[in-house]
Amino acid sequence: MKTSGIITLTTDFGLHDPYVAIMKGVILSINPEAKIVDVCHYVPPGALLHAATVVKDIINYFPRGTINVAVVDPGVGGQRRPIVIETEHHFFVGPDNGIFWPIIEEDRSSSVIHLEEKKYFLPHISNTFHGRDIFAPVAAYISLGIDIRKMGAVIRDPVTLSMPRPKIKGDVLYGEIVRVDNFGNLISNIHRNDMEAFLQSETPVINTGELIIEDVRNAYTDVPRGEPLALYGSSNRLEIAVREGSALDYLGITADDIVGTKITVSKHC
Amino acid sequence: MKTSGIITLTTDFGLHDPYVAIMKGVILSINPEAKIVDVCHYVPPGALLHAATVVKDIINYFPRGTINVAVVDPGVGGQRRPIVIETEHHFFVGPDNGIFWPIIEEDRSSSVIHLEEKKYFLPHISNTFHGRDIFAPVAAYISLGIDIRKMGAVIRDPVTLSMPRPKIKGDVLYGEIVRVDNFGNLISNIHRNDMEAFLQSETPVINTGELIIEDVRNAYTDVPRGEPLALYGSSNRLEIAVREGSALDYLGITADDIVGTKITVSKHC
Amino acid sequence: MKTSGIITLTTDFGLHDPYVAIMKGVILSINPEAKIVDVCHYVPPGALLHAATVVKDIINYFPRGTINVAVVDPGVGGQRRPIVIETEHHFFVGPDNGIFWPIIEEDRSSSVIHLEEKKYFLPHISNTFHGRDIFAPVAAYISLGIDIRKMGAVIRDPVTLSMPRPKIKGDVLYGEIVRVDNFGNLISNIHRNDMEAFLQSETPVINTGELIIEDVRNAYTDVPRGEPLALYGSSNRLEIAVREGSALDYLGITADDIVGTKITVSKHC
Repeated sequence: MKTSGIITLTTDFGLHDPYVAIMKGVILSINPEAKIVDVCHYVPPGALLHAATVVKDIINYFPRGTINVAVVDPGVGGQRRPIVIETEHHFFVGPDNGIFWPIIEEDRSSSVIHLEEKKYFLPHISNTFHGRDIFAPVAAYISLGIDIRKMGAVIRDPVTLSMPRPKIKGDVLYGEIVRVDNFGNLISNIHRNDMEAFLQSETPVINTGELIIEDVRNAYTDVPRGEPLALYGSSNRLEIAVREGSALDYLGITADDIVGTKITVSKHC
Repeated sequence: MKTSGIITLTTDFGLHDPYVAIMKGVILSINPEAKIVDVCHYVPPGALLHAATVVKDIINYFPRGTINVAVVDPGVGGQRRPIVIETEHHFFVGPDNGIFWPIIEEDRSSSVIHLEEKKYFLPHISNTFHGRDIFAPVAAYISLGIDIRKMGAVIRDPVTLSMPRPKIKGDVLYGEIVRVDNFGNLISNIHRNDMEAFLQSETPVINTGELIIEDVRNAYTDVPRGEPLALYGSSNRLEIAVREGSALDYLGITADDIVGTKITVSKHC
Repeated sequence: MKTSGIITLTTDFGLHDPYVAIMKGVILSINPEAKIVDVCHYVPPGALLHAATVVKDIINYFPRGTINVAVVDPGVGGQRRPIVIETEHHFFVGPDNGIFWPIIEEDRSSSVIHLEEKKYFLPHISNTFHGRDIFAPVAAYISLGIDIRKMGAVIRDPVTLSMPRPKIKGDVLYGEIVRVDNFGNLISNIHRNDMEAFLQSETPVINTGELIIEDVRNAYTDVPRGEPLALYGSSNRLEIAVREGSALDYLGITADDIVGTKITVSKHC
């Protein structure tokens, strides 16, 4: 696949330290024409599931041949392998720790390569910062058109990641709150398709935390200001919001209180 | 007007979520050569006045033909119209909710177009994220040179926004603190021109919160370290600062305590 | 030296205000092809030493001819001179307040120029924002290939900065914690070379805060999860970390508690 020349960066480095800029310097030293896009550097430290979800959420919006680097890498310097993946649409570069499992799982024809060819790395490999020493230079070389098959051997046993999935038990659809966004919206792992298959056109009653909400609305503006509602968010997952407000503030809780909490859907009667 | 190819982004999305990166992916998918500049993604959620001020503050420093996208959009999915504006110098893309009113008000010859032509949008329009589905692709098409008149019909009734303006009552000039910056400087809505017209070369006495300050200084270094002063900041508005310190810390308050608070100027006697 | 066309930005402006974007607008107005890389805008306000360390940490990873702008400028509007420096590898633009002293000190053959030629500045110079009025346009003109010798006269007395350096007293190597990163790692000013010269292959015992750690490990994964360790970080300085955790949290302290604190190394016996 031809590269788009775009390299996206998703890390848990934050923006207070120079780590992200160092990766950009390494990339631009190899390919001055690379176009680098920051996706998110505020993945909570070590939060593989969070990073995996973010990467999966963005890729449909980037051109074919985009190179997605994700560095959430608690095992850096240990036994975990550095990998590159080529799917039908994109490249992915990072640690083999499950961060790309949702990508691999969805496109079983993708190639997963163990990065072994040292000429695509920096000359000195530290034990603490493979984002700089391995992943940034590899991404830069891919953006120059280097074939990933030159970078190492195919592996068949990439590390998997357990994703929380919604389940139906009896008359109830069970999911969980997986993320809270900047607006205080509570984002669940229940996709619109899950809801439609479960509900069969019946009206839902949705429960999470101390909230009971009837029905799924089309837009925030379908309820009065300050009122809570359920709707499908921008990635088509069920979310709980408050119009022109924050569901977190409405409930008087923090993100830590609600992420991982159960959300249930039952049929109205 | 010919585009500069630069697209600026001002939002209330924050940098923890992937929303900004998704907008960038949409833009680069349409115009891989677009130059995207982040202005600010920490507009407080829904704070139209804040966003309007930020956009107005930056545009004089960008080249002619720059496309300024601002997405602070509490009415997304409801009746509010998506618009594009062409002034003598710049383009503006975002919701018709007053966010661009200071721009329109200042350049009455500007064209305001209701974005209606769906071929410049993403194929599917959600009810929660027009930044991705409408504003990013429209900005990208403008950066490719598409004439905004092809994008919809001119409207004459854009939504207005009430801006706090300084007022003179008797011997006193009244303004308010509109923003506190990263240094703890208290930035007012009183422009240097307002002050000069009011003072007529007399020395001012300035009051805000518990502070009484005599005179306006030229630079932070005109007072001893740790001392408060008044001066005209980088956008020529009267601000209260503490040399090598923070006016917020000096007063022992938070930004929420002071934004919206009165600041008064009287003539020394 | 030929410019790489890359301009890096290091400031204490934060990302809530439009100041960084304004600098980018000024740069792109002069050189639309400039490639701008944000290094860090969260230098604590006025923290020259912090900024100096960040700039020094990144430059080896950027191409030759990169222009590094650093604006931590408590003396703006006063007597301090604006300067540009050309070393063997890079350009540096900012205030003459010590922020570039570690760069100058290391490359005594570098040229330091007092920026005086107003045609490379914005037409109006404020007393509060030389990042916008002087440093951004100067960087942009350098990125266009303008020779810095046209910008002012050489100076021989740049302002110096006192850097905390490790010292050996008797059988003990004394350093200090200079920074805490996003992962809660405590980063010291003791370089691997200092350690090796001091230890002469003996095993160290390291003390900081309430921690006593034996030996320096190769990687985080050399200790069990949740355990503290010492290792050389990505810039080869001794740091204290907790595997898949935070040394700050482990000690139950904040960065303010530990930055500036002593760290000592003695030989095991």
